[in-house]
Amino acid sequence: MKTGGEPTLAVLGATGAVGSVLRGLLSERRDVWGEIRLLASPRSAGRKLPVRGEEVEVLALDEEALEGVDVALFHLPDDAAAQWAPVAAAKGAVVIDSSAVFRAEDDVPLVVPEINAHAARVRPRGIVASPDCTTLALIVAVGALHSAWGLESLVLSTYQAVSGSGREGVDTLRRQLAEVAGTDLGTKPGDVRRAVTGAGPYPAPIALNVVPFAGAGTTDGWTTDEMAVRAETRKILGMPQLPVSVTCVRVPVVTGHSVAVHARFENEVTVPQAHEILAAAPGVVLCDAPGEGEFPTPADAVGTDPTWAGRVRRALDDPQALEFFVCGDNLRKGAALNSVQIAELVASPG
Amino acid sequence: MKTGGEPTLAVLGATGAVGSVLRGLLSERRDVWGEIRLLASPRSAGRKLPVRGEEVEVLALDEEALEGVDVALFHLPDDAAAQWAPVAAAKGAVVIDSSAVFRAEDDVPLVVPEINAHAARVRPRGIVASPDCTTLALIVAVGALHSAWGLESLVLSTYQAVSGSGREGVDTLRRQLAEVAGTDLGTKPGDVRRAVTGAGPYPAPIALNVVPFAGAGTTDGWTTDEMAVRAETRKILGMPQLPVSVTCVRVPVVTGHSVAVHARFENEVTVPQAHEILAAAPGVVLCDAPGEGEFPTPADAVGTDPTWAGRVRRALDDPQALEFFVCGDNLRKGAALNSVQIAELVASPG
Ligand SMILES: NC(=O)c1ccc[n+]([C@@H]2O[C@H](COP(=O)([O-])OP(=O)(O)OC[C@H]3O[C@@H](n4cnc5c(N)ncnc54)[C@H](OP(=O)(O)O)[C@@H]3O)[C@@H](O)[C@H]2O)c1
Ligand SMILES: NC(=O)c1ccc[n+]([C@@H]2O[C@H](COP(=O)([O-])OP(=O)(O)OC[C@H]3O[C@@H](n4cnc5c(N)ncnc54)[C@H](OP(=O)(O)O)[C@@H]3O)[C@@H](O)[C@H]2O)c1
Repeated sequence: MKTGGEPTLAVLGATGAVGSVLRGLLSERRDVWGEIRLLASPRSAGRKLPVRGEEVEVLALDEEALEGVDVALFHLPDDAAAQWAPVAAAKGAVVIDSSAVFRAEDDVPLVVPEINAHAARVRPRGIVASPDCTTLALIVAVGALHSAWGLESLVLSTYQAVSGSGREGVDTLRRQLAEVAGTDLGTKPGDVRRAVTGAGPYPAPIALNVVPFAGAGTTDGWTTDEMAVRAETRKILGMPQLPVSVTCVRVPVVTGHSVAVHARFENEVTVPQAHEILAAAPGVVLCDAPGEGEFPTPADAVGTDPTWAGRVRRALDDPQALEFFVCGDNLRKGAALNSVQIAELVASPG
Repeated sequence: MKTGGEPTLAVLGATGAVGSVLRGLLSERRDVWGEIRLLASPRSAGRKLPVRGEEVEVLALDEEALEGVDVALFHLPDDAAAQWAPVAAAKGAVVIDSSAVFRAEDDVPLVVPEINAHAARVRPRGIVASPDCTTLALIVAVGALHSAWGLESLVLSTYQAVSGSGREGVDTLRRQLAEVAGTDLGTKPGDVRRAVTGAGPYPAPIALNVVPFAGAGTTDGWTTDEMAVRAETRKILGMPQLPVSVTCVRVPVVTGHSVAVHARFENEVTVPQAHEILAAAPGVVLCDAPGEGEFPTPADAVGTDPTWAGRVRRALDDPQALEFFVCGDNLRKGAALNSVQIAELVASPG
């Protein structure tokens, strides 16, 4: 990175689901940036979008648009990220990429600032990866408990929102909801399937349904989302052998991923200690008084920065296992916020 | 039970969510009954409802209405079941009760015909209990795998439909869906909470949300639904020490409960063998070709009798653990169908 003057930031994918939230965050947070450049596909070139209270013209992503960039926040589809991240890095930018392309690479750190900020310092390819939004829904809370008790295994079931699939996911749910509202659908085999027009990015209707298949298929019946959560959790925690079982399920929620977590530790756990750890963990809000209606839900976590954690229980048969439920905004901590936190780290490594 | 002639069947709660499905089942199945008597609260007395192709007048539940009944199918709220089940039993009826009142009692068998039909023969109080709809979504598939490999522990996360809360749950979801359809709600903290009028039986909005709290609270942070699934699974399988961890979550689905299951066995498992076991198990349909879009969803399972099982995977870190996903209609196998199966067993113990 150049020294002297405030660093130039580029936002790639500024018009997308994540990019839009990111522009909002850049307007709210302490302003450490010089120029902020908004990039997207040629389709969007010339549009004006607000950031830091000003209207900024969107540029088409090309070589010229990447000149003089210090930090480049990539929120592009996988193919575009694969093509352009090495170009931006070669031009001297630190690339912070939220696509799936680089997360598993050995010479690309995968960073969650609350857990492994140090890893962002070593970036042989000039690229830092930000995890999948489902990993980010749980990892900060799990990491805090791991520091205290030593994690031994995880069994995870997810409740993933449609904006995790970008604008297309949101459009699909909204269209399908309009098609089923005011009907008595959802009571006969396949009636929802017949009524909704267009499944969008999903292999089954998402309105009035849950879809236990997120991402693409892999061998042995696992999905890419399930394998990603497993591999990323291991990499971020630095535990390459950690047993992790994941079932990823899409639910008819607009924004806010949730995860039911069964975590086993090397040591005995207690609920009061878990409450203390979670309440003290940066980036976590404890929300656990179910008798008073306090538990995390996506409708409450959406639009907020932290991971919401609650429903904390000790397994009844295993004093070393804890059950809990977490919710996080998949567009904020799940993507835009985590990448901007990494950018701030990189810009002023302190 | 009287001998000679076809037995008289009473349906208590004939106007409810379960009762309505039950009338449909009685019309479809082999007809082993003499008179079928429909009972509900005095509010419904005099209404005419169809069963076996005839319109039958609903009677108010009282002592007289229970005279001469051989088998009484109870689908009433807990308090009414607690009051009337002993009365019906004292009058000589075999009571088959789907409420939560008697399931945990030592002298009341808890029966799932595919698994423990024999238990229905010993009924010291004249009462047979039918399990909770969430237990019934998973127990037939889990029981089949247990017979083959010997179950060692379960970690369960549920995706429960609103009709599990009866007519009031369905009305609440439909009203809230009408309130959010055509809006851009679900993107700001609490916007759904502010927009929906009336939470019905739920402690948080159910449209565009998931609610990780089903049933009532108990000590230690568990809910009654979670404790019920645990206790009932142990009782039905005859494994009073089985480790079971459950997280119960309500989702915006009308009918069809789903469960993500992590099951550990005494023996090594394989996916092909699991497929064989599930495909051969009575009451289970195997639906597991995710590459071709085949996996169980509530939208497909609703209105059908069997448990749909799919997404079968062997845990990557544990050759003795299997992950899978099941869906079942909570009003059919989850309540009406299981109770009518028990009734048929009791009427002709064969
Ligand atoms: N959504 C989430 O919760 C989430 C969470 C974590 C990570 N991610 C990752 O973040 C990335 C963006 O996701 P999203 O949900 O924001 O997707 P999205 O809503 O579909 O937005 C895609 C963005 O990429 C731009 N784009 C597409 N093709 C391009 C190209 N060839 N050249 C330049 N720009 C191009 C689009 O610009 P136009 O408007 O001009 O088409 C748009 O700004 C993906 O890699 C995704 O996996 C998403
Ligand atoms: N819904 C499920 O998925 C499910 C699954 C398993 C078990 N169960 C159990 O099945 C039972 C019924 O559930 P549901 O969902 O069908 O409830 P529901 O839709 O609310 O129906 C309740 C039924 O009980 C009748 N009733 C209420 N109070 C009564 C009284 N004091 N005397 C006589 N009848 C009375 C109602 O008659 P009126 O119409 O006259 O009010 C109605 O027919 C509950 O115990 C529930 O826990 C339900």
